Amino acid sequence: MVKFHDAALDRTFSALADPTRRALLARLENGEDMSVSDLARPLPMSLPAVMKHLDVLADAGLIERHKSGRTVSCRINAAPMEDAMKWLIHYQRFWEQSLERLAKFLERKKAEKGK
Amino acid sequence: MVKFHDAALDRTFSALADPTRRALLARLENGEDMSVSDLARPLPMSLPAVMKHLDVLADAGLIERHKSGRTVSCRINAAPMEDAMKWLIHYQRFWEQSLERLAKFLERKKAEKGK
Repeated sequence: MVKFHDAALDRTFSALADPTRRALLARLENGEDMSVSDLARPLPMSLPAVMKHLDVLADAGLIERHKSGRTVSCRINAAPMEDAMKWLIHYQRFWEQSLERLAKFLERKKAEKGK
Repeated sequence: MVKFHDAALDRTFSALADPTRRALLARLENGEDMSVSDLARPLPMSLPAVMKHLDVLADAGLIERHKSGRTVSCRINAAPMEDAMKWLIHYQRFWEQSLERLAKFLERKKAEKGK
């Protein structure tokens, strides 16, 4: 089993376990900077609530924040997601096996129909 | 952006955000059934504590439990991980871009050295 930095994986998976935080990352997915107020605007919650979510994302290393004058901008940093994906890829053969089983089942059904 | 069943993703990422739960999944990764007591034996915690972790994994659909007589067995169910990976794959281009930038940088360094 590949060894991963456990605490970092804890933080990554934990940060991704919230729909608002995933929505914030989705808003940043074009890789461009966005101000905190632009990020917060469409969300049905207060600015401090959004900022708490951004804190969690920043602690997990999933976003970087830069201050320019009075504006704080955020940018996605996807590197921690790569480790999370490497952990998950380890289990990929399970769903590939399921797909294979399904394909074989469908083939068998087709063959039976053709008889 | 692909739409995912949010509550299910919440549960999957949240279940994976703990090193004990990831260790339990790693023990089950050969796809075979294991009894709860066998799973608990090497862990530095009480049986009830392990059972709570197994509850979280079962709620997230990551394991299935079967009772046979007095023995409860667990088996991995990796299907929810597939959705988690599909969500992460969406961001894969970011680290691929980073690798590309790194490769270009190294090529440039090599070319400079060759001069």
